[in-house]
Amino acid sequence: MSHLETAMGMTIAVFDKYAKAQGNTQTLTKAELKTLLEKELPNFLSGQDALDRIFKDLDENGDSQVDFKEFVTFVAALTSPTLSYNKSDFSEHIT
Amino acid sequence: MSHLETAMGMTIAVFDKYAKAQGNTQTLTKAELKTLLEKELPNFLSGQDALDRIFKDLDENGDSQVDFKEFVTFVAALTSPTLSYNKSDFSEHIT
Repeated sequence: MSHLETAMGMTIAVFDKYAKAQGNTQTLTKAELKTLLEKELPNFLSGQDALDRIFKDLDENGDSQVDFKEFVTFVAALTSPTLSYNKSDFSEHIT
Repeated sequence: MSHLETAMGMTIAVFDKYAKAQGNTQTLTKAELKTLLEKELPNFLSGQDALDRIFKDLDENGDSQVDFKEFVTFVAALTSPTLSYNKSDFSEHIT
């Protein structure tokens, strides 16, 4: 397996691990997103207010669920400083 | 480092490895994308015509360069069957 295939597989595995915890196993609830961020990006989240804003940002279609596409868009946004929707957009969430 | 951080780092490393080969080191030319796909997703590409169409799809802003955001959007689209822009959209490219 190539490095890219491994990275894709790991990203899917992380999403699935937290998405299956409750409710729809294909999507993240706000509680599941909170757990994911606390475990996987431990330096990122800084309180309930930040979580509320991030979840609202990610839930583009307003169904109170974050699907894999919304999640990957978020991960991509965090991954590169060249993105228009980049870390600085989240700076208010980061302590 | 968490699994998600590792996956993010690996995706960046793959992009950087091929982007730095020629020209702008922050973006992929069509030749660089071709090499990346051949090495990293060896079962995906099926000829120059497919490459032309994929590159045109990915180069959203028409600058003949694929930047990291465009690349990650593509990887995300390949990663999940639940995406609107999913594998079936590329089925014509796959042998």
